[in-house]
Amino acid sequence: MTPAKIELGKQLYFDARLSFTGTVSCNSCHNVMAGGEDGRAVSVGALGKAGKRSAPTLWNVAYQTVYFWDGRAPDLKSAIKEQLISPTEMGMPAEASVTDRLSLIPGYRDQFEHVFRKSGSLNYDNIARALAAYIRTLVTPNSAFDRYLDGNKKAVSSSVINGHHEFIEVGCASCHFWVNFSGPVPGLAFQMGEGFYELFPNFQGSKYDKMYKLKDDLGRYLVTKEKIHKRMWRVQTLRNVAITAPYFHNGEVKTLEVAVRVMAKTQLDKELTDQQVNDIISFLNSLTGEFPEQRMPRLPAMPNKTIRMP
Amino acid sequence: MTPAKIELGKQLYFDARLSFTGTVSCNSCHNVMAGGEDGRAVSVGALGKAGKRSAPTLWNVAYQTVYFWDGRAPDLKSAIKEQLISPTEMGMPAEASVTDRLSLIPGYRDQFEHVFRKSGSLNYDNIARALAAYIRTLVTPNSAFDRYLDGNKKAVSSSVINGHHEFIEVGCASCHFWVNFSGPVPGLAFQMGEGFYELFPNFQGSKYDKMYKLKDDLGRYLVTKEKIHKRMWRVQTLRNVAITAPYFHNGEVKTLEVAVRVMAKTQLDKELTDQQVNDIISFLNSLTGEFPEQRMPRLPAMPNKTIRMP
Repeated sequence: MTPAKIELGKQLYFDARLSFTGTVSCNSCHNVMAGGEDGRAVSVGALGKAGKRSAPTLWNVAYQTVYFWDGRAPDLKSAIKEQLISPTEMGMPAEASVTDRLSLIPGYRDQFEHVFRKSGSLNYDNIARALAAYIRTLVTPNSAFDRYLDGNKKAVSSSVINGHHEFIEVGCASCHFWVNFSGPVPGLAFQMGEGFYELFPNFQGSKYDKMYKLKDDLGRYLVTKEKIHKRMWRVQTLRNVAITAPYFHNGEVKTLEVAVRVMAKTQLDKELTDQQVNDIISFLNSLTGEFPEQRMPRLPAMPNKTIRMP
Repeated sequence: MTPAKIELGKQLYFDARLSFTGTVSCNSCHNVMAGGEDGRAVSVGALGKAGKRSAPTLWNVAYQTVYFWDGRAPDLKSAIKEQLISPTEMGMPAEASVTDRLSLIPGYRDQFEHVFRKSGSLNYDNIARALAAYIRTLVTPNSAFDRYLDGNKKAVSSSVINGHHEFIEVGCASCHFWVNFSGPVPGLAFQMGEGFYELFPNFQGSKYDKMYKLKDDLGRYLVTKEKIHKRMWRVQTLRNVAITAPYFHNGEVKTLEVAVRVMAKTQLDKELTDQQVNDIISFLNSLTGEFPEQRMPRLPAMPNKTIRMP
């Protein structure tokens, strides 16, 4: 995590040449100038194909122990390596296509040698490493609720405090706990690659199942093919949840209000009052953090010529 | 051009919610982290449709007297107003769709009132005004050649100096002159809305006509329907030309070397020696300017909900 590696990763993050058509960068679907996603139900990749699951926020992913909604990647680097060659994301035809293309750009060749300290360092693994280094810097500290927990009693309204109590009493906190409100973090109860999953919907049969297609996607089962993993999903962070609509793995729910009601019903078999919902929403809004000021990177040029992109 | 207006324009510039599908921002095709364009022959808009002409660089467009390759927009604001609702660019169905959507976002409502100092200021005209204010700040001073002209004789190599002489002798400078190497600038010989156009190809019949489809697009004729305007094109800046391949209105030419040879042949009926081409390329590389450091904007959130984008 040297400054030079982070800066290189930032350039790659904003560089659409990492996608087959040169039309999509990491930031296109995980917009760090906003909530770290794109506000769409599902994103559209470089080949014009939409994915099946909603782009989750990239803010604070450094605290995750597994990646993707179904936890199929044990670390950030593996997730990135899949995304670059996914036909619904960056759409590169092969790992070699990515390294070949970046190798055409003198500024990247030089930086990879400098950052990884040997020649031939511009390889697929190091591309993912540099990207991961930048992405790990994307954290949002000092939310109003953090400041409240730090002892500043005026940082939040009484509705936030009531909402936090409801959040615990209703049962939300039994999964959405710890620093990222998403369960265990690396190095503590869980190690990297070890996921914290829950069944969703847990209580099946509510009107929401059909309304928001909650049962269509079998989640982690598609990775392991083990029956016990049917509709198991990684518990997602609640930090910045107020600015990362739409919600859930399929992005079918447009508002936080509905998302809260759906969660209470499907996970805890509870119908919330309007007051409860309002207070929980106040609490969730207090989890929006401080976004670090960032300088735009300059993307290394390919002088006097271009890569002809399809 | 107040700081608040420029900042608002910068947010809009990077906000993909200005496109119908939420997948494309101004920066997608006019990347200010790079040469102000996207390195593609033609860009792909929010609806997945490619345009017919190559996205020109946005750097230094403040010095233009007309906009678009065919000069059909008399000022930057008009150009922006067309691009937002163009089916091959931002793809919004109507002007009202743009204002309606931005009006859903509290941070934009507040900023428009603050910047334009009255209620109801979030309208189509002001959206274009704010964007234009930001775009006008995108200038790249202090290229090596600027520093040379300022008296620093060591700023450029002898090849650059030879290239500049060739550039004049061969005849390139008869169109590519003045501060932006694109002919008259506003307020001097030309007024806003008055374009400096040239016929391209001027000498027809070379192998390049077919090879790079130079005659397929009738240019300014498609705007005015006047015969005299057939294949007339706005003379494009040469600032940063080394980092804005591919070249010409259709982006058919991938390298600066070929672009120089094509220009000499089609515009001046001259075949250049390799030495001439090399020196002219050195000169053109000395026109790459200094890119200002820029802070990333924070895009205003739509708390607790999203715009469902198709």
